[in-house]
Amino acid sequence: MPRTRTAPPAQGPVRLGPDARAALRPAVAGIDAGFWHLRREVNARTSIPQGPGLLESAGNLHNLRLAAGTAEGEHQGAYPFVDTDVYKWLEAASWQLAQRTPADDGPEVPPLAAEVDRIIALVAGAQQPDGYLNTWFQIRQGGERYRDLRWGHELYCAGHLIQAAVAHHRATGRDELLDVARRFADHLDSVFGLPGSGRPIDGVDGHPEVETALVELYRETGERRYLDLAGYFVDRYGHGLLGGEAYCQDRVPLREAATVEGHAVRQLYLLAAATDLATETGDAELRSAAERLWQAMTATKTHLTGGLGAHHDAEDFGDPYELPNERAYCETCAAIASVQWSWRMALLTGEARYGDLIERTLYNGFLAGVSLDGERWLYVNPLQVRDGHTDTGGDQSARRTRWFRCACCPPNVMRLLAGLEHYLSSSDERGLQIHQYVTGRYRGDLGSAPVVVRAETDYPWHGAVSLTVEETPDDRPWTLSLRIPQWCREYRVRRGTRMYDQTDAPVTEGWLRLEGTWAPGDQVVLELGLEPRLTVADPRVDAVRGCVAIERGPLVYCLEQVDHPGGGLDDLVIDTTRPLAVKHRPDLLGGVTTVVAAGHRRQLPDGGWWPYRSTEATPGTAPEAGEPVELTAIPYYAWANRQNGSMRVWLPRS
Amino acid sequence: MPRTRTAPPAQGPVRLGPDARAALRPAVAGIDAGFWHLRREVNARTSIPQGPGLLESAGNLHNLRLAAGTAEGEHQGAYPFVDTDVYKWLEAASWQLAQRTPADDGPEVPPLAAEVDRIIALVAGAQQPDGYLNTWFQIRQGGERYRDLRWGHELYCAGHLIQAAVAHHRATGRDELLDVARRFADHLDSVFGLPGSGRPIDGVDGHPEVETALVELYRETGERRYLDLAGYFVDRYGHGLLGGEAYCQDRVPLREAATVEGHAVRQLYLLAAATDLATETGDAELRSAAERLWQAMTATKTHLTGGLGAHHDAEDFGDPYELPNERAYCETCAAIASVQWSWRMALLTGEARYGDLIERTLYNGFLAGVSLDGERWLYVNPLQVRDGHTDTGGDQSARRTRWFRCACCPPNVMRLLAGLEHYLSSSDERGLQIHQYVTGRYRGDLGSAPVVVRAETDYPWHGAVSLTVEETPDDRPWTLSLRIPQWCREYRVRRGTRMYDQTDAPVTEGWLRLEGTWAPGDQVVLELGLEPRLTVADPRVDAVRGCVAIERGPLVYCLEQVDHPGGGLDDLVIDTTRPLAVKHRPDLLGGVTTVVAAGHRRQLPDGGWWPYRSTEATPGTAPEAGEPVELTAIPYYAWANRQNGSMRVWLPRS
Repeated sequence: MPRTRTAPPAQGPVRLGPDARAALRPAVAGIDAGFWHLRREVNARTSIPQGPGLLESAGNLHNLRLAAGTAEGEHQGAYPFVDTDVYKWLEAASWQLAQRTPADDGPEVPPLAAEVDRIIALVAGAQQPDGYLNTWFQIRQGGERYRDLRWGHELYCAGHLIQAAVAHHRATGRDELLDVARRFADHLDSVFGLPGSGRPIDGVDGHPEVETALVELYRETGERRYLDLAGYFVDRYGHGLLGGEAYCQDRVPLREAATVEGHAVRQLYLLAAATDLATETGDAELRSAAERLWQAMTATKTHLTGGLGAHHDAEDFGDPYELPNERAYCETCAAIASVQWSWRMALLTGEARYGDLIERTLYNGFLAGVSLDGERWLYVNPLQVRDGHTDTGGDQSARRTRWFRCACCPPNVMRLLAGLEHYLSSSDERGLQIHQYVTGRYRGDLGSAPVVVRAETDYPWHGAVSLTVEETPDDRPWTLSLRIPQWCREYRVRRGTRMYDQTDAPVTEGWLRLEGTWAPGDQVVLELGLEPRLTVADPRVDAVRGCVAIERGPLVYCLEQVDHPGGGLDDLVIDTTRPLAVKHRPDLLGGVTTVVAAGHRRQLPDGGWWPYRSTEATPGTAPEAGEPVELTAIPYYAWANRQNGSMRVWLPRS
Repeated sequence: MPRTRTAPPAQGPVRLGPDARAALRPAVAGIDAGFWHLRREVNARTSIPQGPGLLESAGNLHNLRLAAGTAEGEHQGAYPFVDTDVYKWLEAASWQLAQRTPADDGPEVPPLAAEVDRIIALVAGAQQPDGYLNTWFQIRQGGERYRDLRWGHELYCAGHLIQAAVAHHRATGRDELLDVARRFADHLDSVFGLPGSGRPIDGVDGHPEVETALVELYRETGERRYLDLAGYFVDRYGHGLLGGEAYCQDRVPLREAATVEGHAVRQLYLLAAATDLATETGDAELRSAAERLWQAMTATKTHLTGGLGAHHDAEDFGDPYELPNERAYCETCAAIASVQWSWRMALLTGEARYGDLIERTLYNGFLAGVSLDGERWLYVNPLQVRDGHTDTGGDQSARRTRWFRCACCPPNVMRLLAGLEHYLSSSDERGLQIHQYVTGRYRGDLGSAPVVVRAETDYPWHGAVSLTVEETPDDRPWTLSLRIPQWCREYRVRRGTRMYDQTDAPVTEGWLRLEGTWAPGDQVVLELGLEPRLTVADPRVDAVRGCVAIERGPLVYCLEQVDHPGGGLDDLVIDTTRPLAVKHRPDLLGGVTTVVAAGHRRQLPDGGWWPYRSTEATPGTAPEAGEPVELTAIPYYAWANRQNGSMRVWLPRS
């Protein structure tokens, strides 16, 4: 099939509608070198090209052929949402197609565009005449539909299909997949609605996801009824239609909720949709709820890595300040959902703190989910693996895995990495806002005039970001807004030949705002201080009492056993009175900056058979003797890439 | 049906066979007043009598009628092991029948003996001609058997039936239920065995339990093949017959295991059986494995309360020193299984430390499982409920519940309480060993001569135990061995008119041994020091770093929110430099001794939206200001008997 790309402007996962009440509009930051470029190259050259083969092996593509009647056999996979692995891969591949496609260069894998066409054809072939599409229910359940909205994931699957279709349309201008998605959405719109609406079912899906997808479909097509349907779904959670469980977001309506609760990914997708709705409709109550819940989440339920979800058994948020290390769930998908939601909040409000959480999440809780070679994955992202850990294997293993029985995370990582340039900058009529620093070109729009700023940086390894104005209206002042990260204690900025420090270029609510008229070639150099630092938690975070974490810039660090021969990690302590040292290690883990700290290995008393002792039996707080040990901390995102062993982020202080 | 009690000697849950290689033999300690008598009165007057009504409401008895063909309808209950709720109740009621039966006195409930007869008839009626009995498979699975040993619980159910039958036979001398159990055991013996044994199935149950029951059946009947079948089962775990999962005890053979792992109750029942086998057969390798695993468990995987199991999702042990507070699983059944196993270890080895763990578990992790009124239960027993806790309800709620969907714990509590007098003392040819202190009569057997010692004590509220010899051979010296609890720092003992302190009456491996000839009326008074104490954990227990727990005697204490008005618990700290005070409170929680400590309420910094801070932003360790607060600690077993709210065992020190 010839590739008939109509070359629309590259547009990302969030495109605001014409009436959106957002403070900012998304801009694009073409990434062409540096930290994220390397990660995206691996995504483009390894992860995405390997997708179709893995989807074939796991049976996902076979299921589509079964539904189309072009193959025979049993439906494969353990869950009713296996189709979404295909959709998320299609979305990832579509964002990839919108760029240079390195996978096309390689001889071993079929060119990406042809693979996308092939798989879209499989999807289209599986769709039923009335628009319904779910291979699990079509094949295993004899076509029975919507009988088990709590667990069936039919609308969840529709949501990922719609997102893939919107991505494909935005990336290629082509309609094949969008037509499939619209048929499904039209079908849903004929089935779901309030009592009295003429629709037969008043219900929501146990896993929110279709809501934010429907808003994007509205944005892509201009069809208002998709937005209305999204609004109906969002407001029907919390009314007991799913049995009233927090797990399914059904315990309390979002508008009344005091904090985030239940299954983390479900909560976050629902909040992304609520933010989309507030953005498109100006619903102040929804906006207020989203702001309140974001505050409650980040202040009391977020791990240092940006990871979310404290419990394994229901993949859910815990109580406030319940942030375990070894049992941190921090599902990779929850990190992705958090970025998606925070980005919507950043656009809606214009506030910099959302970019702070996005940065923290991207560099830590998200990026740890994929191996450096792009071939192995983590579903859960603990902050500690104990000495003597017995790994249970399976999806929730603390060891990287080639693919999962529930393979939601890998293609989700692929789609975020492939579309990453759309989460980094924004613009409004007054100027360009840079939320995240990369090497590339930030392209904003002042309403009537484009602005283009070229950026060069070795961030996060070095703190200097060199910005050069390439396109600007020559007669109109505008503001270049630079997010000064929340972790940053010292910065300075050079504008032309003049240097400002933080006294004469102060930050306002996270933004350093440089106003004025600009000419091509104008240069700004931002220097963010990257001294490594020790971090402590709110005293109510019981899990890390008496501990510190090492951080540098946006990176959270951890110790791995492999760097500390001669013992485990759980008897090490850090000496916080000694300075931290930085070592650039181009040889290590694809090139990282390590942080070296002084510590020692505690001599632990022989506890006999009982590990608890009266304080009178162990009086005072005599310093623990022990062999001095040099502690080598690596960035958390790079852990579990060498050998199995223990790991820890939070270190007891001596 | 007339009650034809043949009045055998009261015999408990563990009766050793004639060839047993145990260091000690179980003795009986008739409890007639004091702490445990009160708890057992509630068990006898409330919990056990309410059992049949609850089993009727939940459908368990209906299921038996269905299987017998004497009722119509659907099988009730969510699990294939619902029959065991009936069996465990029958076991509890049988141990109760062996004693004074206060329930017979009340007018509202049917006399217990008649209830037992009625329910045994239901069980017998449901049994199939070849001995098989499981209502789930007989009714729901169309009689299909042993197709899903991993999840089916058919042998697990058989085990509880056998234990109930042995209890009924020992308590009443009657055969009705024992005949049912023997038919089932004979059936199992015809079905399960090694390849080549002529039995059709080489397999084990996903939930160990039948093994220890079969050993008891051997002990009760003298039939060696039941012991052999138990040995076959124990040794077939760990060979992949169940898929090789640690959860089902199938990852590694017990003889090779380095530590406890997997589902806690499964592990503990299996270890109880292994200990039984080592006891009856002299298998040194099994004994060694049991000793090794007990050591590993207590030293690294036991909560301060004796609770076991660190994870909710698989009800399993965690890694070494992974002992969370708010997510401590500590299933009530695991505490019971731990007592059962440790008692077997105590008899096998003669060592006192097993009694130490039994005491700790009984007074804390076990007893917390039932409310003071005997009507509500905890399945999980956390060591912390956070301020702002959102309770999910269900079986794993931190709120007491009337009955569970999986109602394994309540009748398990009933059977341990009803048979408790059999876990407290032992004897051998050289004397009587008192493992636990109660008011009552310890009746031992020196081989040829009985010894009876009367005990009076207000333990654990007061430390004095007055012991009077009532029966003794007059010409033969023997040793009265008293376990000096591992927590005890000071004790003294008066023998006749002479007082000894710990210098002149030293403890040898936990035992204070008083040798000599005795005459009726001879008196010994043991005084155990009960000064309240602060306890710390091994530094590797990350969950409680910088915290202390309050203990007094065998009791672990906790704070409850209801005693600390004006705020939550998570911002309180304890001042460990100030003395602890003891207050006896006969009005509170059925009469408890509280411990009062000095503390204060921390003034926490406003964390804004992010709960982590650089140490440079919060330099030094300036003392936290805050309002002084008197901390009132209650015994952990009594928590959750007043109102919902937060609770904590481990308290941050100021």
